Amino acid sequence: MEEHAVTDEERLKKQMDFIRETDREKSVFRQTWLSDGSRKENDAEHSWHLALMAMLLSEYANESVNTEHVMAMVLIHDLVEIDAGDTYAYDEEGNKTKREREVRAAQRLFSILPKDQGEKLRALWEEFEEAKTPEAKFANTLDKCQPILLNDASGGKSWHEHTVYESQIMKRNEKTPEGSETLWAYFKKILEKNIANGNIKKESESR
Amino acid sequence: MEEHAVTDEERLKKQMDFIRETDREKSVFRQTWLSDGSRKENDAEHSWHLALMAMLLSEYANESVNTEHVMAMVLIHDLVEIDAGDTYAYDEEGNKTKREREVRAAQRLFSILPKDQGEKLRALWEEFEEAKTPEAKFANTLDKCQPILLNDASGGKSWHEHTVYESQIMKRNEKTPEGSETLWAYFKKILEKNIANGNIKKESESR
Repeated sequence: MEEHAVTDEERLKKQMDFIRETDREKSVFRQTWLSDGSRKENDAEHSWHLALMAMLLSEYANESVNTEHVMAMVLIHDLVEIDAGDTYAYDEEGNKTKREREVRAAQRLFSILPKDQGEKLRALWEEFEEAKTPEAKFANTLDKCQPILLNDASGGKSWHEHTVYESQIMKRNEKTPEGSETLWAYFKKILEKNIANGNIKKESESR
Repeated sequence: MEEHAVTDEERLKKQMDFIRETDREKSVFRQTWLSDGSRKENDAEHSWHLALMAMLLSEYANESVNTEHVMAMVLIHDLVEIDAGDTYAYDEEGNKTKREREVRAAQRLFSILPKDQGEKLRALWEEFEEAKTPEAKFANTLDKCQPILLNDASGGKSWHEHTVYESQIMKRNEKTPEGSETLWAYFKKILEKNIANGNIKKESESR
């Protein structure tokens, strides 16, 4: 009995240590600006926004999805960036070492938790990264679409800042329709509008 | 067929309008400082943190809870503050008009969504506010405990800033054990430590 009580206390301590550690995700900033263009968005806010989208949009997933599973996945998908930092989508050099840096981060972070929960979250993160299950495909689609929504709202602030080309965005979104054809159709129109108005550069324009 | 297609398009438009509108929650700042004391936390980050806590801590709820339901509730519980603003826990004047301001906000915000989803989210918010169901009690407990975690980590920064007294915190947490006796026991110890070290004022000290 006494031994069990001690074990429970250790379990709770590990969980709280992890919850304390994750506070740092609020200080990992992305390249996307908030809709009103006032500042850049951080990973915690981004993940919250994706979870809300999962709640409201899962009816559009190509395959039937377990919404709770999608929510859990998007809530934890960027935790590794606490150590690895945010690698901008169009940073070629950074993307070469991204996987290695993120795996190291996953090993450290998820091992703070009790073993069962650490393994569960690690598996959830790997599932997101592999993007093979219906839930992971849909979560990846949301992760790609949300910044398009914000970029469009801010007048293409981040696209301008980084001089982003149509071909880069289209390549990055090659798999976006795999999670939801309906959402991709909606966001493709938004992208086309921003290509037409010059927020995203056409290939014909000199690089 | 054509009519159905139009209806679907309107539904998606309403959902996207709502998702765009909720971006503003990232600009509603709370009185709690981040763990590292670098700046105050906003509602979107706070809600993300609560959803992560719901995922990891629901085993400690006094009554068995549906974790997805708790996650959904905490993700949306502060949306009304987009219009109503954050009312600090110990702001007596602000708290007199809080309910009225928040109900007005709920009416406007949730009506942006398609009717079924708007009603669902409104009901979820009311459930949180009433704090009667096992899920709502547990969500409220998380909502009260998370700022204690951050305040403790930042050396009581927000408690000092507002000169918070033991009796105020204890009164505010009267119902916190209703969601989880285990979590309350953990956080009560943290509070006692901060009363002992002077981060929270004792009643014996002059007001």
